[in-house]
Amino acid sequence: MLDTVEVDLGDRSYPIHIGADALADRNLWERIESRQVVIVSNEVVAPLYLDQVCQHFSDRDCFPYVIADGEAEKNLGSFEKLMGTLLEQRVDRSATLVALGGGVVGDLTGFAAACYQRGIAYVQAPTTLLAQVDSSVGGKTAVNHPLGKNMIGAFYQPQMVIADTSVFDTLPDREFAAGLAEIIKYGLIRDSDFLSWLEENLGALVQRDNDALRFAIRRSCENKAEVVTADERESGSRALLNLGHTFGHAIETIQGYGEYLHGEAVAIGMVMAARMSARCGWISGDDVDRVCQMLLAAGLPTVAPAGVSPDQYLEVMSRDKKNTGGDIRLVLLKSLGNAFVTSDYDASLLHDTLVETG
Amino acid sequence: MLDTVEVDLGDRSYPIHIGADALADRNLWERIESRQVVIVSNEVVAPLYLDQVCQHFSDRDCFPYVIADGEAEKNLGSFEKLMGTLLEQRVDRSATLVALGGGVVGDLTGFAAACYQRGIAYVQAPTTLLAQVDSSVGGKTAVNHPLGKNMIGAFYQPQMVIADTSVFDTLPDREFAAGLAEIIKYGLIRDSDFLSWLEENLGALVQRDNDALRFAIRRSCENKAEVVTADERESGSRALLNLGHTFGHAIETIQGYGEYLHGEAVAIGMVMAARMSARCGWISGDDVDRVCQMLLAAGLPTVAPAGVSPDQYLEVMSRDKKNTGGDIRLVLLKSLGNAFVTSDYDASLLHDTLVETG
Repeated sequence: MLDTVEVDLGDRSYPIHIGADALADRNLWERIESRQVVIVSNEVVAPLYLDQVCQHFSDRDCFPYVIADGEAEKNLGSFEKLMGTLLEQRVDRSATLVALGGGVVGDLTGFAAACYQRGIAYVQAPTTLLAQVDSSVGGKTAVNHPLGKNMIGAFYQPQMVIADTSVFDTLPDREFAAGLAEIIKYGLIRDSDFLSWLEENLGALVQRDNDALRFAIRRSCENKAEVVTADERESGSRALLNLGHTFGHAIETIQGYGEYLHGEAVAIGMVMAARMSARCGWISGDDVDRVCQMLLAAGLPTVAPAGVSPDQYLEVMSRDKKNTGGDIRLVLLKSLGNAFVTSDYDASLLHDTLVETG
Repeated sequence: MLDTVEVDLGDRSYPIHIGADALADRNLWERIESRQVVIVSNEVVAPLYLDQVCQHFSDRDCFPYVIADGEAEKNLGSFEKLMGTLLEQRVDRSATLVALGGGVVGDLTGFAAACYQRGIAYVQAPTTLLAQVDSSVGGKTAVNHPLGKNMIGAFYQPQMVIADTSVFDTLPDREFAAGLAEIIKYGLIRDSDFLSWLEENLGALVQRDNDALRFAIRRSCENKAEVVTADERESGSRALLNLGHTFGHAIETIQGYGEYLHGEAVAIGMVMAARMSARCGWISGDDVDRVCQMLLAAGLPTVAPAGVSPDQYLEVMSRDKKNTGGDIRLVLLKSLGNAFVTSDYDASLLHDTLVETG
């Protein structure tokens, strides 16, 4: 049995199907009507699940496209190569791309679908916890540029998301924890009930208890869907989803993509956002400790890399997409379960937060 | 005084302002509210009009970005270079890109605006007749891939189009004629009254009579806007706008971009489409002659390049974006002023048309 979350975006609405063995569920995959299906995966995921998905399309013109593992593949070069293959294979505008893998596969495939012949259909089959609770909702697709993460991309919605909770059997601990970081984020920004539930159930989640996971994934997708539905193109409230991300992206950029998993960088970024919120007087030191304890219980890092100066952070953060008019916009916590976006803060407090961190 | 055509696409609606000296009209340009404005142009257009446009933004953070002239610039490499400059210059999501130039500048700038940080605003200031009557309406942006024209792109609407009819004083004859090809196309596909008007006024248009041009540009934009409004993402009736383009793109691909101007290839393609329509029994030989006479009067080529085999055409045409399910879809004429899309025709008639042409 599968849970379904409907993401309501008018004529761009789509369902997220969540549950055990979803990748094996032929009824789901048969909703793809295209004659041509291209399954994009990577060299780690493909040996585990590619055959299982391909077999649903034995009666179609279907071929796999397997990239290397890792964030380094998320660039314009990989994008151009994928475009070339689609053209060589005569993939037409009625085709569907399937992204079978984590965030890198999803972002690259989604951006390719957005741009190939000005847009074709795609389906997300995320195989990491992070991708299931993050990239499943929102239609954000992108590749990186040497000067910044996700700087080249599109808002482009999938036709359907298939989130198989059985795949976590083969997911490494670090990647699993990175997904928990985003789940905790949903609690922190807008759902204090869910946050309390998480504090009580983090043990079960870490042990990959299926019922706990299914609830956490559904609740995360529902939270994100509510935010995205209200603000599809990130002009306002959607920015709340970036709690920890401005700091986290800076860490990823400075350390080079690949040193930290995205969720790990976000975990550290959420601690930094909590500390900044405490310095601004919104939350207490006990609240900051509570955030740290949850992240530690989830197996996540909470301490920023040593030796990075405040100026290095500020240099990178000032290039963040969320900025307007030159100021660095931050997502801060008014309380645990209630985040807000602001660029109206004392710059010296941000500097102090970065000194404390570096 | 300016004419304005409103392109009605819900929250993506925008106006096209048409008339003499529009580039000098400060009131128009002041509708751009961004703090940062980047004016993309090419080395031919920039010396003529860049200063005039830049001066409207003396109170902003404004810089020009000048590319080489020609279709060869419309590729992913140029796209990546522009992205890099925008990032280096700290251009943020509230910025506006202005495309000051012909179709290449417009398509590259529009695609850059569509993808930069997942989408920023852009304004089109087309300086060729072709760009004013074609790229002004529809939001088609793209770059070329070595395996096909416009294969990587997005549907992305501008905030405003400023079509200055005075710029034709400096437009070379060949480029001017290429624009007339698209104007004639609107008559052929859906507006027999306009077609009759064109037959009577082609002399005045070729002499660049201002009143005639203004009417022809407005009527072309109105025709295109009506088609695009009904079918923004080219799933159906919008394909009519591609009369002559399937053949024309094949000619451009086979000869290499740059040998023919786009409008010249489309002119030849429209003759081929007319001949195919006659072979299918829809229109008469006299109708084909009438099409040829108009194009010749406009100063356009009507004869395909020598030495191209039917197989070469079919190879390229089968990769066309408009195809679905493997068949080559063609826009044909049921009568002059009434086009339709079909892949239901006798393949031998297409072959004969290509033999007649090659």
